Amino acid sequence: MSEPKKLHLTAFMRPVSLHTGAWRYPGSYADANFNLAHLKSFIQKLEAAKFDAFFMADHLAVLNMPVEALKRSHTVTSFEPFTLLAALSAVTEKIGLAATASTTYDEPYHIARRFASLDHLSNGRAAWNIVTTGNPESAKNFGLDEHVEHSERYKRAREFYDVVTGLWDSFADDAFPRDVESGIYLDPEKMHILNHKGKELKVRGPLNIARPVQGWPVIVQAGQSEPGRQLAAETAEVVFCSPKDLKAAKELYADIKGRVTAAGRDPKHLKILPAALIIIGDTVEDAKAKRLVLDSRVHYDSAIASLSIALGTDASGFDPDGPLPDDIPETNASKTSQAGVIRLAKEENLTVKQLAQRYGGYSGLAFVGTPESIADDFGIWLAEEAADGFTVVLPFLPQGLDDVTQRLVPELQRRGLFRSEYEGTTLREHLGLPRPKNQFFS
Amino acid sequence: MSEPKKLHLTAFMRPVSLHTGAWRYPGSYADANFNLAHLKSFIQKLEAAKFDAFFMADHLAVLNMPVEALKRSHTVTSFEPFTLLAALSAVTEKIGLAATASTTYDEPYHIARRFASLDHLSNGRAAWNIVTTGNPESAKNFGLDEHVEHSERYKRAREFYDVVTGLWDSFADDAFPRDVESGIYLDPEKMHILNHKGKELKVRGPLNIARPVQGWPVIVQAGQSEPGRQLAAETAEVVFCSPKDLKAAKELYADIKGRVTAAGRDPKHLKILPAALIIIGDTVEDAKAKRLVLDSRVHYDSAIASLSIALGTDASGFDPDGPLPDDIPETNASKTSQAGVIRLAKEENLTVKQLAQRYGGYSGLAFVGTPESIADDFGIWLAEEAADGFTVVLPFLPQGLDDVTQRLVPELQRRGLFRSEYEGTTLREHLGLPRPKNQFFS
Repeated sequence: MSEPKKLHLTAFMRPVSLHTGAWRYPGSYADANFNLAHLKSFIQKLEAAKFDAFFMADHLAVLNMPVEALKRSHTVTSFEPFTLLAALSAVTEKIGLAATASTTYDEPYHIARRFASLDHLSNGRAAWNIVTTGNPESAKNFGLDEHVEHSERYKRAREFYDVVTGLWDSFADDAFPRDVESGIYLDPEKMHILNHKGKELKVRGPLNIARPVQGWPVIVQAGQSEPGRQLAAETAEVVFCSPKDLKAAKELYADIKGRVTAAGRDPKHLKILPAALIIIGDTVEDAKAKRLVLDSRVHYDSAIASLSIALGTDASGFDPDGPLPDDIPETNASKTSQAGVIRLAKEENLTVKQLAQRYGGYSGLAFVGTPESIADDFGIWLAEEAADGFTVVLPFLPQGLDDVTQRLVPELQRRGLFRSEYEGTTLREHLGLPRPKNQFFS
Repeated sequence: MSEPKKLHLTAFMRPVSLHTGAWRYPGSYADANFNLAHLKSFIQKLEAAKFDAFFMADHLAVLNMPVEALKRSHTVTSFEPFTLLAALSAVTEKIGLAATASTTYDEPYHIARRFASLDHLSNGRAAWNIVTTGNPESAKNFGLDEHVEHSERYKRAREFYDVVTGLWDSFADDAFPRDVESGIYLDPEKMHILNHKGKELKVRGPLNIARPVQGWPVIVQAGQSEPGRQLAAETAEVVFCSPKDLKAAKELYADIKGRVTAAGRDPKHLKILPAALIIIGDTVEDAKAKRLVLDSRVHYDSAIASLSIALGTDASGFDPDGPLPDDIPETNASKTSQAGVIRLAKEENLTVKQLAQRYGGYSGLAFVGTPESIADDFGIWLAEEAADGFTVVLPFLPQGLDDVTQRLVPELQRRGLFRSEYEGTTLREHLGLPRPKNQFFS
């Protein structure tokens, strides 16, 4: 008899929230960007709720935005992920720690070393969210005038992955006898010099760090583009995606799992965890009302640009308090996106201002309802192979996090959809992923 | 009435020790390289003794060494400094945290960001040991065939420092009003875009992190070469050097302080802390005996090469258990070094094997004696302007550390040579260094 399938849950975080209006939501911690005490309380609550991992979003620049948006944004500055997650590793015991790191603007030796170190410090809880960093602002912080072209970034990413995983395998697990009597600390036969010489990278090795506790830290990927999906199929163990609904999620799930199989891997060894904003209320209407309050905290001046982009036309002349006009000009740029806006405006009966605030706040996949209704949805997504779990996006902190950990998680646990205790100690064990064999030593 | 001068003390660490025989010393923690619990206990003991800072040595490679030395070395692998110090910041409150980071094989945006983050996480306790990374093994881990030439490294280091400090000043200290009512999170007038375009580096900025708690993390430098001294005089706030004795220390102290004055800085704003191995016994003879035991743990096979280098001639044919032969051939390579070996052999009546073990273990400046005799010496070095304090090198851990914190420090405190309580909370405050003004905002 096989164990019934369970969800995996990670929290995808910015210290204040990914939602741009969250810092103004009543009770939110507007100062969380540089307040370790808040972040410590968040991760400890997520660990008490048995989340698989805590996942810190990141950028390598202050992103370019109009000054009206910039001055209202809490997402511009915060802790650097490696130092933050290392600090949080010292105040937690079981929860996984996922850091974003770029293959375009960093060196594989540094990346391999930092993740290996975080994995040792945390006793096997590190994960690497591989990103190729598309925004041009980052390029300018690293000596370039323009961002590196998309296919070039993915070629380097693939080779970068080979180098990093090769460096993690620099030492056999039993390379360090530390025999005081004979004076043998290290067995040189169990040290591998990588000597990588590829098209993009040249790295000798060995890494100056013992093999990570997990063998390799868990590999996470977010790309949904064609090369992104292929890179994920070949390398990722967790995929973090943004399908717009159940149907799109099932298609994406089937496509990625098929690619994993085609790449000769076991599809169970890649977990697909769509990112989803979770807003919980006493009733569905109550949750929807919370969302409207949250969205209303996005300033119209910074929101209207987002609506214009989604519509493919300038929306700044529309009446903010009226409905979306019927005569939106056709657009070649984003027909699907425009149709989505029109559908949403009708479904939720939103004004132009409310629509703008939705697009300026967080417009991705969302579950807005009661613990029961969301648990119903999660159960359906799991059963219908749309997801292996969710990358939870918290609307506002700490209340939105407390709602998830104190109301949704217990409901999922009652239904047997989520663990009530950690069964293992490493993130690989939480996710049901095997420990990779060393490529160079059996 | 001015406060009498006090010493500053930092601990310069490798997890097992800088001494290559230490892992075999009775009672030592041979597994400390990846044992956070040990490192946590070390730093907490140093904090209880009111040390200024905990300072982690680092390399960017497994250094090239003969296999006989490699297999006996505990210094090959350990935690990466940023992740380690961030983890330790979460379990300490006052002690400074100094990390080594290279200007040759890293990017200023990354370095500025990580130190700023560590400074925020630790509430103002970060320090940057600027190194230019001379060893060729590191170059090979970063895409190069040969190491970058010395003067080229120092040119880049100087510009790198300007970029990093410029990035730290990206935001005025009051750039984030976070006014919920008006919706203004950030004042764009208080954000500076660096737009650095130099000979070596091109970095736009701004840094995506608020100004560090200390304004700038404390700048540490170790270079004793001509360009190293000049870089230190222009940029450093702590210099960590290795004079061979009191006379050499006084000369170096006068030279560096003179250069600081010539560079238009206040010489009190650069602290000179010679690195010194400290071995404590109940009597001076007892301490010397401990040192011989420690040195004896260096295997002769890996030690003899170090003696040959120090002598400038192959010592492998000498009788290990006999005295140093009288007829050492003259050398052009290192007359001073050879004379030093010959003097040491006579002074301490050492066999060839013991000499080799000294040079293979730790042959730099050492204070070997009782708490009282070492406190006498420290007082002389402070009074005669040979040092503003010491970068303490611990011979073996944890016992050598306990001897310093439980025996030497109380003796220094009794004499008024060292603080009994932290007076401030930041590392700058411990060191008596001013908080730098923001270059771009008054």
